Amino acid sequence: MATTRKSARTTPAAERPHPDATRRSQRSRQAIYAAALALVGEVGYPKTTIEGIAARAGVGKQTIYRWWSSKAEVLLEAFLDLGEQAVHAQGQEAPYAIPDTGDIAADLKAVLRATVDQLYDPRFEAPSRALAAEGLVNEQLGREFVAKLLEPSLQLHVDRLRAAQAAGQVRPEIDPRIALELFVSPLAQRWLQHTAPVSYAYTDTLVDYALHGLAPR
Amino acid sequence: MATTRKSARTTPAAERPHPDATRRSQRSRQAIYAAALALVGEVGYPKTTIEGIAARAGVGKQTIYRWWSSKAEVLLEAFLDLGEQAVHAQGQEAPYAIPDTGDIAADLKAVLRATVDQLYDPRFEAPSRALAAEGLVNEQLGREFVAKLLEPSLQLHVDRLRAAQAAGQVRPEIDPRIALELFVSPLAQRWLQHTAPVSYAYTDTLVDYALHGLAPR
Repeated sequence: MATTRKSARTTPAAERPHPDATRRSQRSRQAIYAAALALVGEVGYPKTTIEGIAARAGVGKQTIYRWWSSKAEVLLEAFLDLGEQAVHAQGQEAPYAIPDTGDIAADLKAVLRATVDQLYDPRFEAPSRALAAEGLVNEQLGREFVAKLLEPSLQLHVDRLRAAQAAGQVRPEIDPRIALELFVSPLAQRWLQHTAPVSYAYTDTLVDYALHGLAPR
Repeated sequence: MATTRKSARTTPAAERPHPDATRRSQRSRQAIYAAALALVGEVGYPKTTIEGIAARAGVGKQTIYRWWSSKAEVLLEAFLDLGEQAVHAQGQEAPYAIPDTGDIAADLKAVLRATVDQLYDPRFEAPSRALAAEGLVNEQLGREFVAKLLEPSLQLHVDRLRAAQAAGQVRPEIDPRIALELFVSPLAQRWLQHTAPVSYAYTDTLVDYALHGLAPR
């Protein structure tokens, strides 16, 4: 796809896609993403098929195969697109960044509250849960989604914790990739496994405990 | 079952189960547990059936229905039995207790290392993963297994953290049910979602970070 887009610049006018065609493509893509997310949430990953996605999106099967080679790829891009939409909906300019107000506690609390909102967003919850469930037993799919969706968002926490180390708010010997799990993983487990209720007060508490520790100071 | 066992005390000798019959029952139960765990690990929860468990265990379907009303119940007891076996294998007298040597850091590190061993035990890993996956999308099953298997083991951490509060090693205002998640949930997420490797060094680090916090002291 990257090659196609790049070469379009020098394509003679007669061969360029008509603006209406581009808009139609974009509409088809959005319809395919929506159909893929809805289906996987409703029937689970194993029963979601390219045929089913095409039928629900009102496009031909070949339209999907022209752009993607598997349902896993369609779903991966559908989730990436959903994440971008969520960022735009919050009016953020730079997608995928954790704010740096200079106060690490406040910034982590804000991002965890936004994560709570996203996890329990009805458009997101059922498909994410279905995909996470499949990722537990289908190790290849699980690793691909972790690498392409989860790990990039965790790296934003790494970046923010490194900035906090530079500012003297986090101890220099702390490994940020492990440290972030003290507040990210508890929320993930409560959401995934319904182990206990989730609230902003809960995620705020996680940040306070992680930063200040359980032992007396 | 509890009622049956209780009333056996006053059952006339002629009606009491013969010792050989009791041993056969026990052998059948163990065969059913093993078959249920193996099957759910191999084909997943949805495709595991009472018929399949009976065939693999070499017992009649009615033998299973005499003792349990659903495959979820069979699996729940199979996991409880597996946990008890693991405790006995470690030579512990009191099952399901976290040691209290007076050093909260050492005790939490020891219990997390033992948890790592259990999570990656081949008899345990595939069935646990299959069941966790089903629990994500089947909320009723998920909640039942959390209530009967996961939460009781988390309560042992609550008890140990309360003892540490009494000993002045954990701040009195800390909520132990949230605090335990700082080290339990990261390990659970790495194991469940393959987000990163697990080692004793990693779980030791989680305990140190959780107790002493990320911020400078």
